[in-house]
Amino acid sequence: MNIPRSNFPRVVIIGGGFAGISLAKKLANRDVQVVLLDRHNYHTFQPLLYQVSTGGLEPDSIAYPIRKILKDFPNFFFRLAMVQRVDTSTKTLDTDIGPIGYDILVLATGSQTNYFGNSNIETNSMAMKTIPQSLNLRSLILENFEEALLTTDLKRRNALMNFTIVGAGPTGVELAGALAEIKKGILPKDYPDLDIRQMQINLVQSGGKILDAMSDQAAKAAEKFLEKLGVNVWKHVRVTDYDGYTVKTTTDLTFETCTLIWAAGVKGAVIKGLDANEFVTRGNRLKVNKFNQVEGFDDVFAIGDVASMNSELYPFGHPMMAQPAIQQGESLGKNLLLLLEGKPMKPFIYKNKGSMATIGRNKAVVDFPNYKTQGVFAWFVWMFVHLFFLIGFRNRAVVFINWVYNYVRFDREARLIIRPYKKQREHLHTSD
Amino acid sequence: MNIPRSNFPRVVIIGGGFAGISLAKKLANRDVQVVLLDRHNYHTFQPLLYQVSTGGLEPDSIAYPIRKILKDFPNFFFRLAMVQRVDTSTKTLDTDIGPIGYDILVLATGSQTNYFGNSNIETNSMAMKTIPQSLNLRSLILENFEEALLTTDLKRRNALMNFTIVGAGPTGVELAGALAEIKKGILPKDYPDLDIRQMQINLVQSGGKILDAMSDQAAKAAEKFLEKLGVNVWKHVRVTDYDGYTVKTTTDLTFETCTLIWAAGVKGAVIKGLDANEFVTRGNRLKVNKFNQVEGFDDVFAIGDVASMNSELYPFGHPMMAQPAIQQGESLGKNLLLLLEGKPMKPFIYKNKGSMATIGRNKAVVDFPNYKTQGVFAWFVWMFVHLFFLIGFRNRAVVFINWVYNYVRFDREARLIIRPYKKQREHLHTSD
Repeated sequence: MNIPRSNFPRVVIIGGGFAGISLAKKLANRDVQVVLLDRHNYHTFQPLLYQVSTGGLEPDSIAYPIRKILKDFPNFFFRLAMVQRVDTSTKTLDTDIGPIGYDILVLATGSQTNYFGNSNIETNSMAMKTIPQSLNLRSLILENFEEALLTTDLKRRNALMNFTIVGAGPTGVELAGALAEIKKGILPKDYPDLDIRQMQINLVQSGGKILDAMSDQAAKAAEKFLEKLGVNVWKHVRVTDYDGYTVKTTTDLTFETCTLIWAAGVKGAVIKGLDANEFVTRGNRLKVNKFNQVEGFDDVFAIGDVASMNSELYPFGHPMMAQPAIQQGESLGKNLLLLLEGKPMKPFIYKNKGSMATIGRNKAVVDFPNYKTQGVFAWFVWMFVHLFFLIGFRNRAVVFINWVYNYVRFDREARLIIRPYKKQREHLHTSD
Repeated sequence: MNIPRSNFPRVVIIGGGFAGISLAKKLANRDVQVVLLDRHNYHTFQPLLYQVSTGGLEPDSIAYPIRKILKDFPNFFFRLAMVQRVDTSTKTLDTDIGPIGYDILVLATGSQTNYFGNSNIETNSMAMKTIPQSLNLRSLILENFEEALLTTDLKRRNALMNFTIVGAGPTGVELAGALAEIKKGILPKDYPDLDIRQMQINLVQSGGKILDAMSDQAAKAAEKFLEKLGVNVWKHVRVTDYDGYTVKTTTDLTFETCTLIWAAGVKGAVIKGLDANEFVTRGNRLKVNKFNQVEGFDDVFAIGDVASMNSELYPFGHPMMAQPAIQQGESLGKNLLLLLEGKPMKPFIYKNKGSMATIGRNKAVVDFPNYKTQGVFAWFVWMFVHLFFLIGFRNRAVVFINWVYNYVRFDREARLIIRPYKKQREHLHTSD
C-alpha cells in the first residue's frame, strides 16, 4: 500500500463526496493521518448532474480533483481505489490496490440507484448518479434525435422522442424541466426537419405529490411550472417493468420509449463486511448512534447518505442529500478530535437549512425553514446557493459564464456526443 | 435517407473540420442544397487538443455542435454518419445510415494518424487527433501517476513516469511543453509522496530539426525553451517498434515507457472508391487541380488535409494544417457558385499567414511571413490568434477564463479521470 504509518492514528475515509470531503477538511493539519479512498479521482457536485445530461454545463466544471482539495495538508493521503470488503476484526480493508489497515474507519460511501430488485429496469434504464452516467444520458438523448431524423417508422420515431422519467424527487423534476427547455428552445432549431412537438416528456410518480420532501406550496408550484413547460406529470403511477421499449405500470397506462430515466430511489452503498442485518436498516443504510458510530463499534463510523441516524424529527434517518452529509462530516471531524483526546463526543444535531429545486428559466421553488418562495426570486436564490457551494474559483467562474450565456441566449452549447452511448452499450454497461 | 431533394443541386460535404465548415458557410442561403456528413456531431478545434490531454481545458470548450453552426440556414442538412464508400458512377455514397446521392461531392475528410504500417505501434501507442483520443490520453497520464504511487517495482515506476513523444511537429512540441509544465507546477503538489523529478519527457524526432516547417530561428528558440523546461529532445532518432513497454529506435537508444504518444505523421483520410492509385499521391492525399477538383472528375472535389494541390511553392501540396483547409473551403465555396452559374472557376492561391507553436508559459514561437518573434510577445500572439479562431462566444469566454486562471494560479484544474482508459483498453481500442 505504500503509505507509511506515522506516529498518529490513521483515519481511513471511504468516499470523496460531500460527507467525506467535509470531514477531511476538518482533520487538516491535525494529529491524525488521513487516508481518503475513492473510485474516482474527483469530487462530484451531484446536484448539477442533470445540467450535464442536458448540455447546459461541461462535466469538468462540476467535478473537482480530490488531490487538489487536499494538497496543502501533509497529513493527507489520497488513493484511487475500489473497496471490496472490510474486516473489522483485523481492522483492514480489502481493495483493488491491496489491503489497507485503519485505526478509525469512516464510511462516506454515499448511495447508489435503487432498482428495488428489478433487473429489467436496471439493465434497460439510464441512471444519473455519476458524471459518466450523465454523459451517457447526454449522448443518448442526442443520438435519439439523430436516429429519429432517419427512421421512417413512425412508432419508433415517437419512442425515440419520448423521454420517461421515473421518480419526481428533485432529480426527476429538474431533469424533466431541463428537457422541456431544450425541447422549446434548442431542438426545433437543431432539427428543423423533425416535428419536435411530437417529443413527449413524462414524469411518473408513485405517490400523490411531486417533490414530496418539500412543502405543499413548493410541490404545487413545481407541478404548475412543469405543466406550463409541457411536461406530463403522472401521479399515483408505479412503474413495474421496462424492456427497453415498453414501460409497464401498476395502472393501465403504458409508455413506449427508448429512454427511461430511473430517478425513483437510492439506497445506501454499504460495503461487504458491514452488510449484515444487524448493521443495516431501512434504505440499506447503516444504523449509527448520535455520534455517527456504526452500532456495535467504537472505531467504525458512517456519515452522509449511507448513515441512518434516528431522531425524533427524523425517525428513519436524515434525508439523503448534501446538507446532512456536509453537516455530519463536520460534526464527525470535531468528534474524532475529541475522541482522540479522550474527551466525550458531542451528539450530532441536524440544522435544516431548507431545500430547493429548479424547474427551468425563472422557475424554482425554495423552502427555507421560515420562508418559502416560488418563481423568479427562488430561481436566483437557487443559482446563488449552487454557485456558492461549488468548489473552486475556476469552476464557479465557468459555471457562472455558462449560466449567463444560457440565460441570455436561450441556449445550451454542450450538446456534444463525445462518446456515443449506443455504440458502447453492448460492451460497457457499467454504473461507472 | 429522408432528405427531400430540393429544386437546387445537392452538394454533399464529407467532414465538418476546418475545410468543411468554411465551405459550408460560403454556401449559406445560396441556391444549393447542402448535406454535411460527419461521424461526430461537433466540430473539433484540433490545435488545442493537447491542452485537453494535459488538463488545461475542458473538451467541451474546444468542440462546437455542427448543427448550431448551420441552424440559421434552411438549405442545410446535417447527418451524423460514417461514409463507407463512394460510387462515382451512380453518384452515391454508402454510409452507415443508408445511401446518399449527390450532384457535387466534396471530400473534406481531413487526415488520420500515420503509423507507416507498424501495427505494434498502432496498437500500443496513444494518438491525439480527436477529442475522445485526447481524453483517453488525459486519463492515462493521471492513471499512470496513481499506479506509480502504488508500485514498489522501481523499473515499472520509472516506465509509468516516462512519457515519450514521437514527432516534433507542433503537436509533439506543444504536448511535450505542456507535460513539462504540469511536471513542474502540478504533479509535485498532487503527488507529494512520489519523487516527480524521476518523470522523464522525451521528444523524439527522426530529422535534425524540430518544428521543421518553421524557420530556423523558431526551431532553435523552441528547442531552447524545451530544454529549459527539462524536456529531452532527441534528434536524428527514428522509432521503429513499441511493445507497450520498450521503445526501439534506429540507434542504440531505447526507452522504457508505459506511454508512447505518436505524433510522427498523418495521412489523408481517403474514402473507398477514391482510393485507387490514379487518385492518390504522396501522403495518401487526393490529387486535385487548381480548383480543388479531384483529377478525372468534374463533380468531385477535395479540400483541406485530404487534398494535394501541387504548385511551384508547394510541390507536394499545401501543409496539412488549419489555414490551407480554411482557405480552400472558402475558395471552393466561391468556385462552386461560379460553376453552378456556368462561369469559369478561379484558381486557388494559398496565402501563407504564418505559423506558430507554444511551448509553455510565456514561451512561444511565431513565424509571420515578414516578421518572426519568440518568447513572451509570441505567446500573447499565439493566445490571441487561437481565441480568435475558436468558434462561439461561450467557448471563447470559457477558454479565456481557463487561461487566465491557469496563468495566474500556475494551475490546470481539469485533471480528472472521467473515463478510466486502462479499464476500457481491452474493450475499446478505437480511434474514435
